[in-house]
Order: sequence, then structure tokens, then C-alpha cells
Amino acid sequence: MVAELIFVGTELLLGQIVNTNAAYLCRNLAQLGVDVYHTCEVGDNVDRIASAVRQALSRADLVITSGGLGPTADDVTREAIAEAIGRRLVFDPKVMEGIEELFRRMGREATPIQRRQAYVFEEGCRVIPNHIGSAPGLLVEVGDKHIITLPGVPRELQAICEEFVFPWIAERSGAGIIKSLPLKVCGLGESTVQEMIEDIMQGLSNPTIAFLARPGEVTVRITAKAQSAEEADRMIAQVEGRIRERLGDNIYGVDPQTLEEVTGRMLIQAGKTVAIVETSTGGWISSRMTDVPGSERYLLGAFVLPSTKAIEREMGIRFDRIVGEEVARRMAEWVMRRCRADFGLAATALLEVMEGYTETDLGLTYLALADGSDVISKGIKVIGDKTTMRQRVSQAAIDLIRRELIR
Amino acid sequence: MVAELIFVGTELLLGQIVNTNAAYLCRNLAQLGVDVYHTCEVGDNVDRIASAVRQALSRADLVITSGGLGPTADDVTREAIAEAIGRRLVFDPKVMEGIEELFRRMGREATPIQRRQAYVFEEGCRVIPNHIGSAPGLLVEVGDKHIITLPGVPRELQAICEEFVFPWIAERSGAGIIKSLPLKVCGLGESTVQEMIEDIMQGLSNPTIAFLARPGEVTVRITAKAQSAEEADRMIAQVEGRIRERLGDNIYGVDPQTLEEVTGRMLIQAGKTVAIVETSTGGWISSRMTDVPGSERYLLGAFVLPSTKAIEREMGIRFDRIVGEEVARRMAEWVMRRCRADFGLAATALLEVMEGYTETDLGLTYLALADGSDVISKGIKVIGDKTTMRQRVSQAAIDLIRRELIR
Repeated sequence: MVAELIFVGTELLLGQIVNTNAAYLCRNLAQLGVDVYHTCEVGDNVDRIASAVRQALSRADLVITSGGLGPTADDVTREAIAEAIGRRLVFDPKVMEGIEELFRRMGREATPIQRRQAYVFEEGCRVIPNHIGSAPGLLVEVGDKHIITLPGVPRELQAICEEFVFPWIAERSGAGIIKSLPLKVCGLGESTVQEMIEDIMQGLSNPTIAFLARPGEVTVRITAKAQSAEEADRMIAQVEGRIRERLGDNIYGVDPQTLEEVTGRMLIQAGKTVAIVETSTGGWISSRMTDVPGSERYLLGAFVLPSTKAIEREMGIRFDRIVGEEVARRMAEWVMRRCRADFGLAATALLEVMEGYTETDLGLTYLALADGSDVISKGIKVIGDKTTMRQRVSQAAIDLIRRELIR
Repeated sequence: MVAELIFVGTELLLGQIVNTNAAYLCRNLAQLGVDVYHTCEVGDNVDRIASAVRQALSRADLVITSGGLGPTADDVTREAIAEAIGRRLVFDPKVMEGIEELFRRMGREATPIQRRQAYVFEEGCRVIPNHIGSAPGLLVEVGDKHIITLPGVPRELQAICEEFVFPWIAERSGAGIIKSLPLKVCGLGESTVQEMIEDIMQGLSNPTIAFLARPGEVTVRITAKAQSAEEADRMIAQVEGRIRERLGDNIYGVDPQTLEEVTGRMLIQAGKTVAIVETSTGGWISSRMTDVPGSERYLLGAFVLPSTKAIEREMGIRFDRIVGEEVARRMAEWVMRRCRADFGLAATALLEVMEGYTETDLGLTYLALADGSDVISKGIKVIGDKTTMRQRVSQAAIDLIRRELIR
């Protein structure tokens, strides 16, 4: 199957947003064995979109458009496709009901302008529900080819793709499959991971191994191409076993699992609770820990104490400095006792220059984890912009709990 | 001047990298007053690149390609352009000298394979030096049109653009510039914003007005095309005045300003401090408030109390339910007193189904803001996945402070 992608939106051509939908769709289509030879961006203009659709239909089996499905007058993708394939748009009351229902759930009322999003093609058209936004997707049959229109908002596009588009493609193509196993590793840098498994990678062509580094973690992706899912799984399992042997506990899970999810599940299984106190990460650690459904079962409380004054107010202890090993250890013990939790986790980090520190201290971090009998602590230095540093600090902090739980 | 952009590289079509060059080039071309109506991505394939170049030349004055200039056999952009415009490539010893010089500076020697990068078009071709990589750019005259080939590595592409491409375009076009003013609005939905300023938009063609919705906010972008920056500013200011009059305090700033930044700056200016307590947003509000440099000056502390038990432990009050107006009001007052802050902000929200609640309660949110003399509170209902809901709740909560400060 050959697919061609059309990204609609004047904001793309003005460079106001980076087109991340392209890489997302291409990556997933490649994994489904779909060939993409062309993608293009066009503005919110009926003629130009229509001519892009015509050209795409002339060279591909499947045309996917993203963007231009909004309720306002500048959103014209539907009209342009109608022109390109010579088919009428008709109002679909059932789609309108769905939109009204969505607005009701938000405690608002759908405005008349929203009616535009309830228009569908009069024939050969299937509505693809959008559960998180008001623009549904459409699947349109054009002879033996298909057009799929998707909203441009990445969250909405991705939700519709995972739920409908990718399974639909997988079912139709049947041309051998590609499977991937993305192992998530934390506590090691990308080059260290690579060196540790270099000999396993040597001479390997199927499955292949690829790396993706994000702040605080590395994904090791094993990808196999085979005639059946079972065969691909078998090929992957062989390499996986060798990699797991080598990287051990540094592998915490499989994408899209997150470290907080894995750690949260471990806490629930172990019946353990945790309390958190953080300084300049400002709530990142606790907001990651509470991303996990059911987190109220293990997180008993979290405190953000951004200054030595705030620490003194809560703990009754006056520290000279906001970042330090002793500070972190005392805070971890304090928060554990305070919340009567099994674990107390503390993170102190210097993410912007403050009084008493210089530029070279930036990224200085001390973490501590207390349980009833002991306190472990760890000093690291993180780099990057503030968001990246927060991600790295919170990753290392949460990993302290995970490693304690598998000891 | 109309430009069309062609991004070459199979890695783009496999989704292995996000195409950030597109947004970079589009943004800068827009500022130079160059219209871009089409961009496309093609793989490393001579025929497909050549046909993309032919099509681009048929509808634009300037065609910019990026990528496919490397030394290896899969880099074929030069060959494809040669085919598209029917012109020969010839070896240029001076370019080769430059490449050898670059390698010497890196303490390495140019390999024979590097010779491919020293081929240029036999006529109407100007070499654009690349000081940080081995692939020079080329400026090719094709009748009264031009093709510019650039390397795909963003750093190299950007360096060549700043040094050569943009000044060259500015000199040739003299056709005015495009400027944009993106106003950020919160507290109103996209369709409401549009209805409120519909009459201002009517019949407007320059400047134009466009909308971009994100969870909890809408950007209203005014874009003007003019002969000079001053004229564009004047045109924008006229429309801006009318929009500001209509939307009033719902406009909180200008992109890329964030609500937390604006609110943080207002707190610093007013010399006011704040303390935060949140339930299921789990630290989102405080981590957004501490994203801002210098936030330790106004944030005195933040508490995450994920359960009625945690609230009881800290506040000494037993509530039946975790979400409620009275709960939020009491929490806001408590945290203000507790941290001796000027403002106490509390957010209680139901972001996953918990004991005592059903599916239909999801998104139920009560916010409260206490100052020394009064408590204001607000109930809203948010939708979306958990991350979106957290974003919406934190947006509404931070906006409470902002609105209080401008009263």
C-alpha cells in the first residue's frame, strides 16, 4: 500500500508551528509496511488543497489529510476534497448530536458555527469518532482508493489513528508485518547503553536495534520484519533475552510505559506508600507520580518548598543552602514521618542561579529516599534547559523508589 | 516573490526525524514577505525529486531544496535537479579545495567519496559557502527563476540562510514584509472568541485574523502584509485596538508569553506572594508557577493533598468529598494562612473516577482564591484526557490570580 500525506494549514506555511504530525504518521505507517513517497503542506485554500488531493490520488492508494476541519470559515479541507472528488457534502444530524454531547460534557453549548463540523460526504463516507475534540475524522471511498481526513491537533490526530486508522490499515494491507519492541532504560546514557550491547548488534540485520535518547532515559528498539506476528515475536524475543541479560534492572519497562507508571504499579503491588518533598522541581515529581490512575492509593502527600525559608517554616530547621546531600536526607526523613508514609522522597536541585550559587553550580542535584530504617542519597549533575533538567531530576528521583522496590 | 520548498530525505518519510527546517524556513520567508503556498517532502530518489523540482518551478519563482547533498550514493539532490533542468554537473576543483580545507581543520583527511560534493552545475551556478559542514549550497539560475540547494542539517542550513539566503532574498524582492501579532486569550472558547469579533473580521483581507486553540487558551493572530515594518505595525495596531476593546481582560498577553509568566511577573510587580494547595492536579499548578525564573520570590509553598485523608492530616478538617466549592474555599484560606501568603489558591478536581463519584462527574472542578479579606470561588467542568484536563484546570486556576491582580 502506498500512502500520501497532505498537511493543511496556513500556520504551517507561515512557520508558526512545527509539523510533528508528519513524523508521527510516517513512523507509524512505516511500521505498518505502508510506503510513503510524498508528503506536502498547503495553506487553507480550497483550490490548492483540491489540487494536492487530486495529485495524491493519482499516485497513492491512500491519501491522509490532517488539519482544516475546524468550525471556522478558514477551515476548508472538507470543501476542497468535495471539489477534488466531485462529491457533495451533506449535514449529518448524528454527527451534530455527538458534537452537542461533547459540549454538554464541558458544561457549554454548541454554537451555530459548530454545524460546519457536522458535514460529511453524501456517499462512500464513514465517520471516524473523535472522543477528545469536536472535529470527527472521515474515511472516504474513491473507487478502489481511500481518503482519510483527520484533525490537525496532534493529540486528537493521534487518538484517532491509534483507535481507528492504524488498525484499519493493518487489516487491509496484510503484506507481511513489522513489529517493534521498545525497551525503556534509565540510569544509563545512550552511549553507555550502546557500548554495553555493541557485540549483540554486530552483524544483525533483522531484527535491527535502534536507540532513541530522551532526557533521563534511552529507548532500545528491536524491530523485526516477518510474514506473521508470531514469527516476528520469536525473532524479537531472541534478541530481547540477550539485551535484558546485559542491561538488567536498568530496563524498567516497554514503551509507552513510563517510569512513573511502572513505579506506581510496583508501589500498589507492594502495598507501599510514599510522600514527596521537592524544591526547585516545583511539583514535577509529584505531578508525574500522580499522572498514574489510582495514584491516591500510594501518594500520601507532596510538598513544594522553594526556599530555605519555606523549609524552615515547615520543618523547623534552618539550612544555609537549598541544595545539599544533608538537606535532602533530612527532608526525606521529615516528609516520610510527616505523612506517615513507607517512603519519603526528597529532591533538591539548582535549576536557576540563586543567591549563594554561581553559574557553574547549575544542575547540581541531591536526592534522598528514606524508609523506616535507612536513608539513601545520591548526588548528580543535570544539564539542559530548565524543563530538561526538571525531567532529568524527576526521572532520577522516581527511579530511586523503583530500584529500592526491586532490591 | 513566491517560493516553494522541497525537503529531501527518506528519513523524513520514515518518520525518523521531525522536519524543523520547514517551520524555520517558512517563518523567515514570511517575515521577508515571500509567499509560500506549497512545501513537500520526497525520499532520496532521483525521479521523484526531479519531478518535485519541475512542479515547483512551474508555480514558484524560487525553489529551495534541503537535504540530499551528502557524499554518499543515496544523496542525489544535485543529480535530480540536473535532470529536472537539463543541465550537466561538472567537478569544481575550488569547491574541492574548500572541502579539503574543512577536513584539515578537523584534523582529518577528505576521503575520495567527498569528491561528489564538489560537483556544481556547468552554468548559471553560484557556490554558497558552508563554513560548518562539507556540503556547500548552490544557487542556480533557471531562466528568470532560481533554485537554491541547501544541506539538510539544521545548523548548517540555518547558518547558510542567515549569512547568504535571507539577505539575497531581501535584496531581490523589495516586495514588502509580513508581520504577525499573536494575542493570547484565556477564559473563553474558540467559537466564543470568534463570535465576539466576527464583525471586525468581516471583509478584512489585510490584516487577516486567524485562531489557534490549545487547552485552556486561544491565540488570535493578526497578520499584516505591507511595504515596511512600520506600515505593517500600523495596520496591525488598528485591528488590535478593536479586538482588545472587545475581548478586554480575556487577553492576557502576546505569544510566546505564557499565562504563568504573565501572572508571575504581575505578582513580582505587585510585591505579592502566593501559596497553593491542589488535589488531583498533583502539582501541575505549582510546577507551572515555578517554571518562571525567580518564582521563589512569590511562591511561598505548595501542597499536594490527593485524598480527604491527606487533607485531614494537614488541615485537621474531615471533608466527605474531595471535590467541592466549600472544600476549595476552606483549602484556599488554610494554605494562605499556613504560608503567610497574600493569596491562597486551591484547586480540587475530579480527573479520574474515585469512590463516591461516577463517570459523569469526571472533570468537575472547583477553584478558590483567598486573600486576607475575601475568598472567591469558581466551578467549571473540564474535558479531555487527564493531561488536557490538568492543563485546563491549572490554566483556570492561575487565571484566577491574574484576574484578581488586575481588578
